[in-house]
Amino acid sequence: MSDIKKVVLAYSGGLDTSVIVKWLQETYNCEVVTFTADLGQGEEVEPARAKAEALGVKEIYIEDLREEFVRDFVFPMFRANTVYEGEYLLGTSIARPLIAKRLVEIANETGADAISHGATGKGNDQVRFELGAYALKPGVKVIAPWREWDLNSRDKLMAYCDEHGIEVDFKKKGKKSPYSMDANLLHISYEGGILEDTWAEAEDDMWRWSVSPEQAPDKATYIELTYQKGDIVAIDDQPMSPATVLEYLNKIGGENGIGRLDIVENRFVGMKSRGCYETPGGTIMLRAHRAIESITLDREAAHLKDELMPRYAEIIYNGFWWSEERKMLQAMIDYSQRDVNGKVRLKLYKGNVEVIGRSSDDSLFDESIATFEDDAGAYDQKDAAGFIKLNALRMRIAAGKGRSLLED
Amino acid sequence: MSDIKKVVLAYSGGLDTSVIVKWLQETYNCEVVTFTADLGQGEEVEPARAKAEALGVKEIYIEDLREEFVRDFVFPMFRANTVYEGEYLLGTSIARPLIAKRLVEIANETGADAISHGATGKGNDQVRFELGAYALKPGVKVIAPWREWDLNSRDKLMAYCDEHGIEVDFKKKGKKSPYSMDANLLHISYEGGILEDTWAEAEDDMWRWSVSPEQAPDKATYIELTYQKGDIVAIDDQPMSPATVLEYLNKIGGENGIGRLDIVENRFVGMKSRGCYETPGGTIMLRAHRAIESITLDREAAHLKDELMPRYAEIIYNGFWWSEERKMLQAMIDYSQRDVNGKVRLKLYKGNVEVIGRSSDDSLFDESIATFEDDAGAYDQKDAAGFIKLNALRMRIAAGKGRSLLED
Amino acid sequence: MSDIKKVVLAYSGGLDTSVIVKWLQETYNCEVVTFTADLGQGEEVEPARAKAEALGVKEIYIEDLREEFVRDFVFPMFRANTVYEGEYLLGTSIARPLIAKRLVEIANETGADAISHGATGKGNDQVRFELGAYALKPGVKVIAPWREWDLNSRDKLMAYCDEHGIEVDFKKKGKKSPYSMDANLLHISYEGGILEDTWAEAEDDMWRWSVSPEQAPDKATYIELTYQKGDIVAIDDQPMSPATVLEYLNKIGGENGIGRLDIVENRFVGMKSRGCYETPGGTIMLRAHRAIESITLDREAAHLKDELMPRYAEIIYNGFWWSEERKMLQAMIDYSQRDVNGKVRLKLYKGNVEVIGRSSDDSLFDESIATFEDDAGAYDQKDAAGFIKLNALRMRIAAGKGRSLLED
Amino acid sequence: MSDIKKVVLAYSGGLDTSVIVKWLQETYNCEVVTFTADLGQGEEVEPARAKAEALGVKEIYIEDLREEFVRDFVFPMFRANTVYEGEYLLGTSIARPLIAKRLVEIANETGADAISHGATGKGNDQVRFELGAYALKPGVKVIAPWREWDLNSRDKLMAYCDEHGIEVDFKKKGKKSPYSMDANLLHISYEGGILEDTWAEAEDDMWRWSVSPEQAPDKATYIELTYQKGDIVAIDDQPMSPATVLEYLNKIGGENGIGRLDIVENRFVGMKSRGCYETPGGTIMLRAHRAIESITLDREAAHLKDELMPRYAEIIYNGFWWSEERKMLQAMIDYSQRDVNGKVRLKLYKGNVEVIGRSSDDSLFDESIATFEDDAGAYDQKDAAGFIKLNALRMRIAAGKGRSLLED
Repeated sequence: MSDIKKVVLAYSGGLDTSVIVKWLQETYNCEVVTFTADLGQGEEVEPARAKAEALGVKEIYIEDLREEFVRDFVFPMFRANTVYEGEYLLGTSIARPLIAKRLVEIANETGADAISHGATGKGNDQVRFELGAYALKPGVKVIAPWREWDLNSRDKLMAYCDEHGIEVDFKKKGKKSPYSMDANLLHISYEGGILEDTWAEAEDDMWRWSVSPEQAPDKATYIELTYQKGDIVAIDDQPMSPATVLEYLNKIGGENGIGRLDIVENRFVGMKSRGCYETPGGTIMLRAHRAIESITLDREAAHLKDELMPRYAEIIYNGFWWSEERKMLQAMIDYSQRDVNGKVRLKLYKGNVEVIGRSSDDSLFDESIATFEDDAGAYDQKDAAGFIKLNALRMRIAAGKGRSLLED
Repeated sequence: MSDIKKVVLAYSGGLDTSVIVKWLQETYNCEVVTFTADLGQGEEVEPARAKAEALGVKEIYIEDLREEFVRDFVFPMFRANTVYEGEYLLGTSIARPLIAKRLVEIANETGADAISHGATGKGNDQVRFELGAYALKPGVKVIAPWREWDLNSRDKLMAYCDEHGIEVDFKKKGKKSPYSMDANLLHISYEGGILEDTWAEAEDDMWRWSVSPEQAPDKATYIELTYQKGDIVAIDDQPMSPATVLEYLNKIGGENGIGRLDIVENRFVGMKSRGCYETPGGTIMLRAHRAIESITLDREAAHLKDELMPRYAEIIYNGFWWSEERKMLQAMIDYSQRDVNGKVRLKLYKGNVEVIGRSSDDSLFDESIATFEDDAGAYDQKDAAGFIKLNALRMRIAAGKGRSLLED
Repeated sequence: MSDIKKVVLAYSGGLDTSVIVKWLQETYNCEVVTFTADLGQGEEVEPARAKAEALGVKEIYIEDLREEFVRDFVFPMFRANTVYEGEYLLGTSIARPLIAKRLVEIANETGADAISHGATGKGNDQVRFELGAYALKPGVKVIAPWREWDLNSRDKLMAYCDEHGIEVDFKKKGKKSPYSMDANLLHISYEGGILEDTWAEAEDDMWRWSVSPEQAPDKATYIELTYQKGDIVAIDDQPMSPATVLEYLNKIGGENGIGRLDIVENRFVGMKSRGCYETPGGTIMLRAHRAIESITLDREAAHLKDELMPRYAEIIYNGFWWSEERKMLQAMIDYSQRDVNGKVRLKLYKGNVEVIGRSSDDSLFDESIATFEDDAGAYDQKDAAGFIKLNALRMRIAAGKGRSLLED
Repeated sequence: MSDIKKVVLAYSGGLDTSVIVKWLQETYNCEVVTFTADLGQGEEVEPARAKAEALGVKEIYIEDLREEFVRDFVFPMFRANTVYEGEYLLGTSIARPLIAKRLVEIANETGADAISHGATGKGNDQVRFELGAYALKPGVKVIAPWREWDLNSRDKLMAYCDEHGIEVDFKKKGKKSPYSMDANLLHISYEGGILEDTWAEAEDDMWRWSVSPEQAPDKATYIELTYQKGDIVAIDDQPMSPATVLEYLNKIGGENGIGRLDIVENRFVGMKSRGCYETPGGTIMLRAHRAIESITLDREAAHLKDELMPRYAEIIYNGFWWSEERKMLQAMIDYSQRDVNGKVRLKLYKGNVEVIGRSSDDSLFDESIATFEDDAGAYDQKDAAGFIKLNALRMRIAAGKGRSLLED
């Protein structure tokens, strides 16, 4: 184990990753570089500096990655209307590739030969961090302390702190939430505790980012989103940067009780897992993006995207963001968004996101053809007879030869 | 045109199809057989008898098909979690194949050589009726009056009634709804009128089956659905027939403001079209079925279903229910539902359907493995390292040979 | 019918399209512009000029499109390893979009308001011509004489020639081949005649571009193909243009009895059809392209391409080359070819194309890892245990809960 | 390691697995049960009995599984026209699930708690054996000696034999083939040695089951295959059992130089690997099955199968035969074969398999419609105009609104 000289750690500043700093220094006798990112998780990142210093860390990276996160990861994913297993908006999954990328870049800058993270050996996040790291720096060593050490309970961690003089401050935080949580600009997630009983309802005080529909205002909120090439560039005609868009939608969505989700999902490592999520802005974005596409996207383009979306979602969920297959699909998806421009009008009310209008200079909706009124010859109804007869031909031939679709 | 002797008409008893009866008799000099089905559209079907008789029809079929509709069409479709273009629950699409089947069967019974319907030449329904008819009776003639005649306005239809002595009763109905509507146990739909402006919000008095979320009760309703092989067999432990299940969920869903949808969709005939839908029961069933599958279905089975669902939805939307490809997919889907048994607990509140619990004797959720607590060796975290390294191998090799995924 | 002023006709110079020139002039009282393209069909195109002139045509386009055809249509299609229904290399399908494009461009240049072609009403080619024309010039009128006139036999056509003084020269050609044929640089096709009996073997004197394997040389021919970004740029180290590549491979392939195919295929218009094809160069290119990809393409990239290929092939077969969905897929496919560079060595012998070697500076084949010999630690076999155990986890859980995969 | 009491070993009777018997007895201090199967590999299996006895094995299973292998594994796979990465017929992959099943069944019969095999830690076979075992007996222990021991060269193995008194007989076999080989009724495979250079041509004396095309007879061989529900039931009108069919086709195919393949494939464990294969019978069956389907299968059924085939092939290649997803796909595939009956006539000549005729009482080929001659009204060519215009509608609308497909 002595061949690792320097390791870059994804460091939150919390108890677990602080223990990891010490454990890495001790176990591998190596230098630790900490990397702490503001991805919009809603906690200050700057305090991580003093904590890292107290642990003897010399190279400390603290970065605000919110714009890059939304612009280069969240927005591209939403261009595909991405949903995993019909429900999950991939809030955790989409943040990992960015962290993996920065871990590798910092390793390259600092001459580190390894990276480390605080994810457990049962979850998806270890896979996402490590696949990203291996893909971008193939010779990198990966240290996953939770797969190696025996500090597998909170008591043992606390004892380790005492033994190693890790700052009281970490311990003060008092009783830990019963849930394992993760947050970034796209969502906050909850796992573990009572949720491990799939029949039990999540407790109302678990949720942090949104009010319940019951507590949301009795009056609806209306907003208009402006799209350019599939991305939101303005809200209510105010131009906004990607991160600002998502912050704004999180705020307004959370106030209206939007975006709570309670599911059992299938992890890449092979088990089922209960997760609760709050994704206020993302929930709005998904509906709105489908709405702007509904008038600007060609039918077969839309259907092709729909058929490939589950695959694309699985790729991201499983941690293969930095892969050839994701980039191929992204090339196709991005190409399709050339004309996805225009406005969507939404009504937000007690957990509901209703699309009530969409308009676009690039709209393919043609009133003169779609109308139930006289269309002045824009469409010849007689064409439909031939259309139907040739679509039916193969079935008519089969039935004519005695094949029956009524029997099994 | 004189070679048609007898035609079976899908007859609603309304103005349009009454005109069609007369027009067929006159234009084709043929006998007309009327077929009127109760599919749960919420209107009496028996009055159609007197109207048909008044038009000189001798063979009149009036049937209650609600159980067959839900059991053999709606339920099989929901086993696939079917959604068209990410939003539409296919309420109209799924009723057409059953009508087509009965038209053909009645044609066979009565010795008719043609079938007819009241769908226009711009929509999907003509396709669905006729593909079904051709697939089940390949030599059948199809008469689609809206594609043939010139009675293309309400005034002309009314004039035709006057000229041909069609009962005043039809005309009394006074001002017609501005919308083109269709209803059955699964949904009611609205098209046309103001909806042809995609930016305009639907008027609140358009909706008929549900209250708005604002008008729904301030207190949530809880229900438990019991599944067997992917179908609901009981609600709150009361065994119910398929049609009763859907009626019950429509009622409770509509009361809670659930199931309204406003979209622009892509028709098979090539144009975009605005449609508004109320699908209270179906909206509940979709969420609940995903929930029961989430604990009982194998991951790869679920993903395979998700990848094929858009195709399956398109097949139904386009009218190919009676096709080899639909039956192949159904064989696969039905096979997957062998163990989709158990209960789902839902909270219904002002437009929201929240899954709050799911349980099953066939659950694949394994607390002892999923837990964040000590799992007593049920899962060896060290296995994850090998799992990740081999999943990363192809990417490590590529990166090691100089391929970069960071560049475009 | 009098509203058409000028029509651009895809004119071969043969009997059928010469009759069409006259018939269009007479029936529509319009000017006819002829367009004759050299796509490598192996016949002189210049003679079409005199024939068109003799028919009174004033605007005559005769063009050599061979390089554009191969560069912009054939090569992009082969990047996808495209095969329709497991066998057909789409030789006819891929030429139609280029002709449609030129028809439209010439219509724009000459101010024509319509296009016309000599394809029948039963085949795929009418669809391909017309979909292309409509997609590129939405207001264009299309005249398909074979769907309109009653000259549906050779005798009637000959009589029409006599009546209208169409040059004897056309008639002299004597007895027509019993087959309907089409040719371009990619292939020559045969339909009709004896082939309409699916049990009958094609006659040996039908084939024109290749010798039979029996007649091919007893000694194998070896060639090396050099690829850049998925396209062949040199043969046996001689740089060649796209059309030259295909001409060369056709020659060498045909001499070695390569590329004959006899199939029953499914037409877009709904019927099955027997077709025989000679595609010597294309048959070689398909094998060779897979071989160069086998060492340069990432596994998941290759599998994604394989899964989408049938769809891509269907799009081209059905005539949707000029569609958003084809362009989206092309964007994805082309993106994947960035590193598809290198050489493939082939042995051609009596109908067989054998890949006997492939090499590339961009090869992802790693001898040090793949070897059965000691790999000096490049790959840790113990990783496989964890890899397998987690891949098996979902199945172990299911089996542990009593699910059996041995029963049906 | 002492907790394993009895292990069932897939025993070939060769040197490697004989060493494994001894090594298991010694290392795990456990009883070893040997299982030797005749899958058509072309070697006697009975001699394995004496060898196992000499090694002290008490429970010896020797079984002829050829019929089960072809009937329940090979034939179902060929119903899907299965090919991995466009070339490989999965000869090795398809045998593993049967062996895994028998290992588990024997473990259950003999009360063994573990299974073992002789596959290395770099290949796919370890995955296939172990996934099958885990899926069918979730608590089973798996011992993969090649991942555990250090006998990683032939010299060490020989030394081990000497030390442990393993029969001289094994050593006599003299110089081992330079290739790693595997054989069963479907194919024989070669890996390693000179093949690890992807540019090097395979040596001619490597191939064992087929003559080269050059050495094949100068006169073609004709055969007729009779299909029922997608499976071959007779050759030249002689009814044959599944294994007899494959044996016969291997013989006749090998004599005609059919079925050699030389590829670089992507292993599930992440590396590329060169493999050479001889699959004479399988190569014939693939062409013939496509041919019988070409006249009996509905178009969309065929296309759906084609689109899912790569996924199905990947599932088998990766070792997930005993999985829910494979069984779902199989249910769909088998359903599609209801009417795949009839005859295919083939010409075999120097490596070529040519389909020259196909016939079926269930043929969907309709000469009266497909004909280029007058069809007496079976098909109305005018229908095509409407068919094309509605298929083009979405593109005409888009182009009419200024979208251009000619630009990128």
